Amino acid sequence: MTTEQIVLASRPTGLPVSNNFRMEQVELPEIKAGEILLKGMYYSVDPYMRGRMNDAKSYAPPFEIDAPITGSVVLQVVESKSEHYKAGDVVVGSFPWQKDFISNGKDVRKIDTNLAPASYYLSILGMTGLTAYFGLMHIGKPKAGETVVVSGAAGAVGIVVGQIAKIQGCHVVGIAGSDEKTKLLTSAFSFDDAINYNTTTDMNKAIAAACPKGVDVYFDNVGGEISDAVIKNINFHARIPLCGQISLYNSTEIPMGPRLQPMLLTRSVLMQGFIIGNFQARFPEGIQMLAQWIEEGKLKFTETIEHGFENLPKALLGLFKGKNTGKMIVEA
Amino acid sequence: MTTEQIVLASRPTGLPVSNNFRMEQVELPEIKAGEILLKGMYYSVDPYMRGRMNDAKSYAPPFEIDAPITGSVVLQVVESKSEHYKAGDVVVGSFPWQKDFISNGKDVRKIDTNLAPASYYLSILGMTGLTAYFGLMHIGKPKAGETVVVSGAAGAVGIVVGQIAKIQGCHVVGIAGSDEKTKLLTSAFSFDDAINYNTTTDMNKAIAAACPKGVDVYFDNVGGEISDAVIKNINFHARIPLCGQISLYNSTEIPMGPRLQPMLLTRSVLMQGFIIGNFQARFPEGIQMLAQWIEEGKLKFTETIEHGFENLPKALLGLFKGKNTGKMIVEA
Repeated sequence: MTTEQIVLASRPTGLPVSNNFRMEQVELPEIKAGEILLKGMYYSVDPYMRGRMNDAKSYAPPFEIDAPITGSVVLQVVESKSEHYKAGDVVVGSFPWQKDFISNGKDVRKIDTNLAPASYYLSILGMTGLTAYFGLMHIGKPKAGETVVVSGAAGAVGIVVGQIAKIQGCHVVGIAGSDEKTKLLTSAFSFDDAINYNTTTDMNKAIAAACPKGVDVYFDNVGGEISDAVIKNINFHARIPLCGQISLYNSTEIPMGPRLQPMLLTRSVLMQGFIIGNFQARFPEGIQMLAQWIEEGKLKFTETIEHGFENLPKALLGLFKGKNTGKMIVEA
Repeated sequence: MTTEQIVLASRPTGLPVSNNFRMEQVELPEIKAGEILLKGMYYSVDPYMRGRMNDAKSYAPPFEIDAPITGSVVLQVVESKSEHYKAGDVVVGSFPWQKDFISNGKDVRKIDTNLAPASYYLSILGMTGLTAYFGLMHIGKPKAGETVVVSGAAGAVGIVVGQIAKIQGCHVVGIAGSDEKTKLLTSAFSFDDAINYNTTTDMNKAIAAACPKGVDVYFDNVGGEISDAVIKNINFHARIPLCGQISLYNSTEIPMGPRLQPMLLTRSVLMQGFIIGNFQARFPEGIQMLAQWIEEGKLKFTETIEHGFENLPKALLGLFKGKNTGKMIVEA
């Protein structure tokens, strides 16, 4: 059979454009004994993918030119010659941006779509939820009564971070890019306060007003000037988990800013970059806690679902324009 | 009796000058029952004092205009009306820059000048040694075979950090400001390599050459462009204890530099500011280890001793011109 995939046509300079991607035809053979034929249902679209489009050393290797973009995908078994799977099973794994796949079944794991919608396994019960959980709990270490600020608060990770911080008994302030998003954070996701950085002229003052006791934990998804303003309000012994720097991902030059070390030094602040892989040995703990909070109704989630496999590049570009609330997913 | 003290006459802008200080006469009464009369022997002169000359919130409160500079002092008991002290005892405490003092004996502790020279209690067996010990061991956490880089390596703290890192089995590279200092580090203080930043045109390359396996721990005493170059060579999961930022202490504007967070993020680096007070509960552990290493001959120390009480301001100014090797002390 013939299927389609999306490859990296060229490396972007600055913000990616649709010409950096190309749709290609791929021929798939008949499946053999032990194999399964899979059809992509939901494709995860994540900010870190931008980094992999550069030819630079980072925590994930760069995507190759003329090779497909890869990421997490929820798939359905269409045909099975494996004793472990039957048609209709839903699985998750790391795959190219491609419509159909052949697998030996070893690179996927079955998921329970009765416990949660299939797409949740790309997000709150997947890397997104675990990133929020471990970054906040194991680096941020929030204590009841402390103030937690989250940037990119309406993004997939941020929206979970804020809710977990509330579960811990913290005063939680989110920073996001539209009034629609800030309203959603305080009305639907239990944030105590939220700041729209696009309409706020003095972020330093706005953060000081929203955090009268200063900032004890700053969960940073965005970097740049928003982070500069938060760090001006940082408390002694504060913790700053560095989860993302989306405001800088499209920079073509090394971004400059105020030097942070004097502030970190005089206030005994900890700043720590992390990737979720660092916590792999502890994933079961995270999954168990997240599932429990979802079941107890303490943890809610939101997704932005775009439709159509061919819209994957557009969805990725949309991330950098703040088009998403919560996790960005494309339904094939 | 009449004695003399040195007060802060005015707050410096940028580099302090001798006019920022003033010598004053002070009248001392006769000592009463329970009191002791003390004479200053050695005065500690430290980079952090520059921060206290500004009227700004930091980890130590600012010095007041027309009030004396204060710091650690080793003193001798001249006359005692206390049952706990006799004339000739040597003690250490935090005191103003003043020649003679009256004390009730509660703000000093006796030191053993047979174990080590009296001045060592201002340095290797005092805050300097403990700062090196806790910053390196509890934040840097060096493992045998790792590479440790120390900036300000010929300074009081740096020279101890490098030796402790060697005791831990690390490859140790120091950064200092003269050939005399770099030679001293490798010949007398067991550093594997040392870089003179004043004669090196490409620090990034020089660090890469001295650290072929990258940098696992960067003990930062200086900040600024030297730190930028070290951080370019930082390894995954590296640790950066922030101990000082002497290159920036005299800045009158907020110093700008390349944003660090993308590097800290993609390499899962920990950066942590600290002051020695954070580790107060564990001081006995540090003092015991430092004393043991000195006794075993594994830990050596060097001091720059200026003479004359009236030269205290000059000695402080000298710190910012790199005049000292090891701890800067003034002998009265």
